[in-house]
Amino acid sequence: MNKMASSTSPDITPVGLPDGRVRVIIESVTPTVDGGRFPIKRVVGDTIDVEADCFADGHDVVACQLLWRQRCAADWQQGNMQPLGNDRWHARFAVDALGAWEYTVRAWVDPFLSWHHDFARRVDIADVRIAALTGSALIVEAAGRARRAKATADAKALKAWGAELAAAADTGDVATLHGLGLDKALAEVAQRHPDLRHALTYVPGAAATLAVTVEPVRARYSTWYEFFPRSAADDVTRHGSFADCEAWLPYVQGMGFDVLYFPPIHPIGRSKRKGPNNTLTPGPTDVGSPWAIGAAEGGHDAILSELGTLADFQRLLKKAKAHGLDIALDIAFQCSPDHPWVSQHPEWFKKRADGSVQYAENPPKKYQDIYPFDFESADWHGLWDALAGVFEYWVSQGVRIFRVDNPHTKAFPFWEWAIARIRSHSPDVIFLSEAFTRPRVMHRLAKVGFSQSYTYFTWRNTKAELTEYFTELSQGPGKEYFRPNAWPNTPDILPTALQSGARPVFMSRVALAATLAANYGLYGPAYELLEHRPLKAGGEEYLDSEKFELRAWQRDRPESLAAFIGTLNRIRRDNPALQRDTGLRFLPVDNEQLLAYAKLSEDGSNVIVCVVNLDPHHVQSGWIDMDLAAFGLGPDLPYQMHDLITDARYLWQGVRNFVSLDPQQVPAHVMRLRRRIGRENDFDLFE
Amino acid sequence: MNKMASSTSPDITPVGLPDGRVRVIIESVTPTVDGGRFPIKRVVGDTIDVEADCFADGHDVVACQLLWRQRCAADWQQGNMQPLGNDRWHARFAVDALGAWEYTVRAWVDPFLSWHHDFARRVDIADVRIAALTGSALIVEAAGRARRAKATADAKALKAWGAELAAAADTGDVATLHGLGLDKALAEVAQRHPDLRHALTYVPGAAATLAVTVEPVRARYSTWYEFFPRSAADDVTRHGSFADCEAWLPYVQGMGFDVLYFPPIHPIGRSKRKGPNNTLTPGPTDVGSPWAIGAAEGGHDAILSELGTLADFQRLLKKAKAHGLDIALDIAFQCSPDHPWVSQHPEWFKKRADGSVQYAENPPKKYQDIYPFDFESADWHGLWDALAGVFEYWVSQGVRIFRVDNPHTKAFPFWEWAIARIRSHSPDVIFLSEAFTRPRVMHRLAKVGFSQSYTYFTWRNTKAELTEYFTELSQGPGKEYFRPNAWPNTPDILPTALQSGARPVFMSRVALAATLAANYGLYGPAYELLEHRPLKAGGEEYLDSEKFELRAWQRDRPESLAAFIGTLNRIRRDNPALQRDTGLRFLPVDNEQLLAYAKLSEDGSNVIVCVVNLDPHHVQSGWIDMDLAAFGLGPDLPYQMHDLITDARYLWQGVRNFVSLDPQQVPAHVMRLRRRIGRENDFDLFE
Repeated sequence: MNKMASSTSPDITPVGLPDGRVRVIIESVTPTVDGGRFPIKRVVGDTIDVEADCFADGHDVVACQLLWRQRCAADWQQGNMQPLGNDRWHARFAVDALGAWEYTVRAWVDPFLSWHHDFARRVDIADVRIAALTGSALIVEAAGRARRAKATADAKALKAWGAELAAAADTGDVATLHGLGLDKALAEVAQRHPDLRHALTYVPGAAATLAVTVEPVRARYSTWYEFFPRSAADDVTRHGSFADCEAWLPYVQGMGFDVLYFPPIHPIGRSKRKGPNNTLTPGPTDVGSPWAIGAAEGGHDAILSELGTLADFQRLLKKAKAHGLDIALDIAFQCSPDHPWVSQHPEWFKKRADGSVQYAENPPKKYQDIYPFDFESADWHGLWDALAGVFEYWVSQGVRIFRVDNPHTKAFPFWEWAIARIRSHSPDVIFLSEAFTRPRVMHRLAKVGFSQSYTYFTWRNTKAELTEYFTELSQGPGKEYFRPNAWPNTPDILPTALQSGARPVFMSRVALAATLAANYGLYGPAYELLEHRPLKAGGEEYLDSEKFELRAWQRDRPESLAAFIGTLNRIRRDNPALQRDTGLRFLPVDNEQLLAYAKLSEDGSNVIVCVVNLDPHHVQSGWIDMDLAAFGLGPDLPYQMHDLITDARYLWQGVRNFVSLDPQQVPAHVMRLRRRIGRENDFDLFE
Repeated sequence: MNKMASSTSPDITPVGLPDGRVRVIIESVTPTVDGGRFPIKRVVGDTIDVEADCFADGHDVVACQLLWRQRCAADWQQGNMQPLGNDRWHARFAVDALGAWEYTVRAWVDPFLSWHHDFARRVDIADVRIAALTGSALIVEAAGRARRAKATADAKALKAWGAELAAAADTGDVATLHGLGLDKALAEVAQRHPDLRHALTYVPGAAATLAVTVEPVRARYSTWYEFFPRSAADDVTRHGSFADCEAWLPYVQGMGFDVLYFPPIHPIGRSKRKGPNNTLTPGPTDVGSPWAIGAAEGGHDAILSELGTLADFQRLLKKAKAHGLDIALDIAFQCSPDHPWVSQHPEWFKKRADGSVQYAENPPKKYQDIYPFDFESADWHGLWDALAGVFEYWVSQGVRIFRVDNPHTKAFPFWEWAIARIRSHSPDVIFLSEAFTRPRVMHRLAKVGFSQSYTYFTWRNTKAELTEYFTELSQGPGKEYFRPNAWPNTPDILPTALQSGARPVFMSRVALAATLAANYGLYGPAYELLEHRPLKAGGEEYLDSEKFELRAWQRDRPESLAAFIGTLNRIRRDNPALQRDTGLRFLPVDNEQLLAYAKLSEDGSNVIVCVVNLDPHHVQSGWIDMDLAAFGLGPDLPYQMHDLITDARYLWQGVRNFVSLDPQQVPAHVMRLRRRIGRENDFDLFE
């Protein structure tokens, strides 16, 4: 804990019994993650609603405050909490800067408010006179606290009030004393200087205060385009370069993406290099997998010479920025046998019993081109330091977004430590966790600090699956720390659903990702060009994958979805409802092939209703049930549904309305709800 | 923490990063209360099911153990946890002694099990040979741990195994090496000596370990009879005594109660004494309220002379025990103006501005015969000590059950400290919290240590109210710490529902209490004699309440419910299903006036199905839906419903069955489900 200024800072004391006179109880503070063990996550500009149960024994009046500050700040900010009933209290605060914030709740049994409450109810003149004296003494005490807090005007006013009340106590009647003792303005002054001698500051079980990690808005809302720079030459015989990538920027920007993500850009190992389609017998010109990181030329802080120089990279970074694009790098903590660290730091790798370095394996499968790090190394601290240093090197080169490869095969304590270290100097860095694994593992990675997480969306296809999964993501406990990033494909995953190559499926899957999740991405140009040939039937690997060879993409093919994707991303940009994950609710529709849902902006003013036809073959129609109350609609007046993809406008009214979608046209409605704002010349006017 | 023996005790380390090589994660351990801040509650003989999420990065095999001990024990007991799937693990332990127990979970990435898992899957002979050497080294390490743990036989066996495996590695084929390396019996020996260097012991947020308070079985299952000993003389002109009470013991025992609870037995104040029906002008012979505690003769450790001497009390205590009855005392922490502490410890009371002692009040109401204690007294420690001393004095006289009056008007930290202090030397003491107040307050009192709690049952009358409330009590988070004690009446509460005096209502209310709650009580003989005259219409106070005057009760009145209550309590005693609060499930029945529910014993063998007619005026009938799967019944065979009140037996079959209840006969079925166990002479036989 930082040292706290005495006037505004609470006394953070341990749970227990430091002073038996502290009678107030604080329980069930929300939001929290694992009892305060992990921070909640927010983005700059967010407002955080905090609630707590605060109460005490007996009938005395309890008061409580929310306390918050940036972790580095000396003083706490504070705001009175308001009662919600049943001993629950609420207040909110805004986070207006990046980095670590903290908050907690302070409560106390308030002698002045207790006196005030009872005084108003007293009717017996003898009682009222005695109580006036009691009140006078409490007010004079408040005057003393005001004086010590240098609130001179308050001190003066309270002192005078206390004296007046004491003087009136001798002779005043009930009405006079009530009038004086219950003065509203003066009571407010007194409440500015509460008696905090027996105040309690909440200490969550697992930390001194509750923490918030405040990240850039892009952590909550981002649109990713994954692209192999080595294919940027549009020529399978020529290795693409960063310079070639510059020509792609208008194309990616035109589709409305804001993050351009590259697989690893480092030198690629030559030992055990993989050939096309993951074969073990590469030819001399084969380029290998970019995830086999490191060669004689360098490792995680070097650039594959075919891509260009560091200067080329920095120029691309700047040009991308000018196109509204952040470049995200892929950080894969593993080494090819040729990585300099293999010889420089043999202690960071496991040895086999024959003295050779342990390669990656999942018996009987072997991945001999990859050496994993040993997180049980005796030099774990040196290893941690080097790995955190990789991020920090690229941060120093201007990179602010990292997609982390398989973080679930590296120790969780490392991630918690490394991400905190990087954020301590660079709070604007965003980390995407590429863990497609068991739920607990994915959630733990989010808790320890990853900004965004890959999801199971890739394999959730039916109405029931999508409804259950996105309800959990947007409303489950993970909503405080797990930000989904939905991908309809990746270089590793060509989902079965896409292998038909049916254009309606490609359209509905990207529409689902773009509207269900505030963060989504796709691997292109494979996606927009409907690439769908699997390496093997029943598998999910692409045939002729860019992971092992150069590709040339014919971007001007007429069936390209580039324009459709561009439309979706423009709709996302224009509608705040689509820029956050909360505010999602599924809507009943009487057809199992139609999925309907609404997303609302935080203030409820922006409402997007999506209907997706999950059947790529047939027109599907049905009746959708609108949630009129949630959308601020009356039962009788019409409202307009404005399809932002086709620009069609439909007049709807009441709860049940008809929808129909032809997959051969567009398999999805993405409609903005426009409320009726009046009537002119016999026409209804809408927002 | 006590000092821990090195061989079996875990290393309790703080949450954080003591050693970066500790890769395992432990999360979401259950059961817990507020992240370990408070103990869970159990009774002697209970088995506790513990679950936890345990996992690590990567594909290594994780192992975990449950650790538990009595808090005073030097060594931890331990048991392997079994995987439930999805990274969740389970184990259980039994608590076979009263007092404080603790438990936690230890997990680690297990090198031997990881090797074993991979070894079984290896197929390449070169790999298998190298892996055999790796395994041999791990086995030799296990041999060393076995040797240091003095497990000599294990050490020898492992050493030999390791050597054999190493020797075979040179020449053995895959089958030979698999056969040797995967030996089941030897693997079990190795697993007895795991490598715990990187083990993690779970530390809940709010404490070092998770705690269990183990109480007597009577904390979970008890049947209370509240009785004013001063009315024991059966004569309103003669003050009853403990000697008179002895004559009541067979009567109370005959009704099947096991706790006989007396309102305060201390000297009663004379200043501001209340007269009959809470009047302020008592006559010279009026006995006053037993809750106005203390007079010149003594305070909370003295006995009202009219009741008898301490010796008389102890004789009664013994005789009650011989009748299967524990005597519970009422501890009310407040003083009459005549209490010796008022002059001996003026600092324990608040002063009014005129120098007089502050009496209890809730303006404009005044309770001038009662002085509350000031829990913000500068001498709070002296006050706490004296109050805890009151319990301890009566414990030293042989009392083991206390009903605590209005605990919610005394500071929570006091209760937590006092109950822990008393339990530290007398773990068999049971505390009942008489707090009829807001939910958070009642729950906090249960968390800080009260064994049982009064409930809102007294005011829950309809099917919806009873279903919602008892579902919450038996299945909500409170089930780990809040044990309801249901009362259909108390000396303070004659509920509106009883004011008609209708016998069916008295019968149904006591049947509900006796079957819905494992702990219940009533205030008699007012209850069994259908006392129902309110002091004022619209109020809940009894007319001519024993709180302020002596009463004589004509126990042999023919309408007495004593026999009915005796039957209910016998059924409770005979059926374990009714002796616990868990195992309750409500059953659908198509009549709003019929409430149906089942209670199951822990092993499911004892099933009680209750149906209560909530309408005191009319016969009500309907179709009840039985939960065949939950009751272990097939869909086709008949089963017998044996009404334990009337001894009638009904043959039921399948899900839907007919019930009908005439309130003028008995408004409730309490039926034991008897499963079919065979057939003899053309008749079905039932349990």
